[in-house]
Amino acid sequence: MTSQPLPAQLPQTDLTRHRRLREQGSLERAELDAILDAGFVCHLGVVVEGRPLVVPTVYGRDERQLFVHGSVASRSLAGGTPVCVTVTHVDGLVLARSVFEHGVNYRSAVIHGEARKVTDPEEKLEGLRRLTEHATPGQWSYARRPSRKELAATTLLALSLEEASVKIRTGAPDDGDGPDAELGLWAGTLPLTAVWGAPVADPLLAPDVPVPGHIARREGTRHG
Amino acid sequence: MTSQPLPAQLPQTDLTRHRRLREQGSLERAELDAILDAGFVCHLGVVVEGRPLVVPTVYGRDERQLFVHGSVASRSLAGGTPVCVTVTHVDGLVLARSVFEHGVNYRSAVIHGEARKVTDPEEKLEGLRRLTEHATPGQWSYARRPSRKELAATTLLALSLEEASVKIRTGAPDDGDGPDAELGLWAGTLPLTAVWGAPVADPLLAPDVPVPGHIARREGTRHG
Repeated sequence: MTSQPLPAQLPQTDLTRHRRLREQGSLERAELDAILDAGFVCHLGVVVEGRPLVVPTVYGRDERQLFVHGSVASRSLAGGTPVCVTVTHVDGLVLARSVFEHGVNYRSAVIHGEARKVTDPEEKLEGLRRLTEHATPGQWSYARRPSRKELAATTLLALSLEEASVKIRTGAPDDGDGPDAELGLWAGTLPLTAVWGAPVADPLLAPDVPVPGHIARREGTRHG
Repeated sequence: MTSQPLPAQLPQTDLTRHRRLREQGSLERAELDAILDAGFVCHLGVVVEGRPLVVPTVYGRDERQLFVHGSVASRSLAGGTPVCVTVTHVDGLVLARSVFEHGVNYRSAVIHGEARKVTDPEEKLEGLRRLTEHATPGQWSYARRPSRKELAATTLLALSLEEASVKIRTGAPDDGDGPDAELGLWAGTLPLTAVWGAPVADPLLAPDVPVPGHIARREGTRHG
């Protein structure tokens, strides 16, 4: 692995080429980065005895690779296993004049590659740092860090960000200038937004422990 | 397919048995139903030439099966193909004293089966009705329904809800009564909520078309 930056244009391979709805595909790596940075839960797909298995899990990243918490899928990831990681943000419903033109506004990234189990303790610690900071910036320097034993008990996977594709849909329905516009029906979008709520203290927490600033200041901010 | 209701307990098969974090598994079909009813976007996993592919798509359901919009994955679904459909709601971050105990509060359903392409026009229309009503109740009787040509151009998949597993995590971190409780660190959860926004009219819409009540009344309500 070199320190060369990944190309600004995503590759077009058999796996990433957009076969349908081409207008929604993007080849900009910056779009991929933005989608990954906006979330912290992905759907990890693996093949187990010829059948697909899709599980949600948390992720972090650096410039070249994704770090994925192994969890359930790790039993089937014996190194070099092909995986697919998908991150999706649902931005709202597209309510057209016709049912046929209905859809969803969304941003989605699909990453293909071979999962590598991270075994080097230093690399694993750095991967966990990125994963923790990705979900909750500021938390790595606040919480107690993993012991050697905890580190060994954690499965962390790394996946190159080289082979990826992006799809994005935004804006109004597509039938505003077609014959259905004459129907007089309302059409538009219904936005969906995820928002962080107020921190809820562990009931077992002593009452005098303040909520740290890096957590408190997320309340009311948008996620995704 | 009979009209017998599906069993209230989910089956324990090689595919659905919870191998890890058993305490988070549920065998109640009612939990599965609740998770499916709370969302409209799933992640559909298929195997393409030995590799996993995971794509987001919309779904609806009846009592016994899921209807999934074919979309991208349809090119690899030649009938009887094993698929995995996962629906996940992220409810917040679990912020423990130790990084090791960090996690996510979530509700997730994983459905295993073989996708069946719905070809009968009447069944397809009924499946599309359920899919449309699932995402936007009231919309099927408001919007223009599919023409015969549009119906033929739509790929709809059906998937039995028999083989499914559910995982749910709620509540506080797990290290409130362990040695880390002495660290004096704040711990708890940071809730994440998805909320429907105000309807945005298509810019091409005539200004006098009112937002129908079934859409307007969703503003400010919670999703997921």
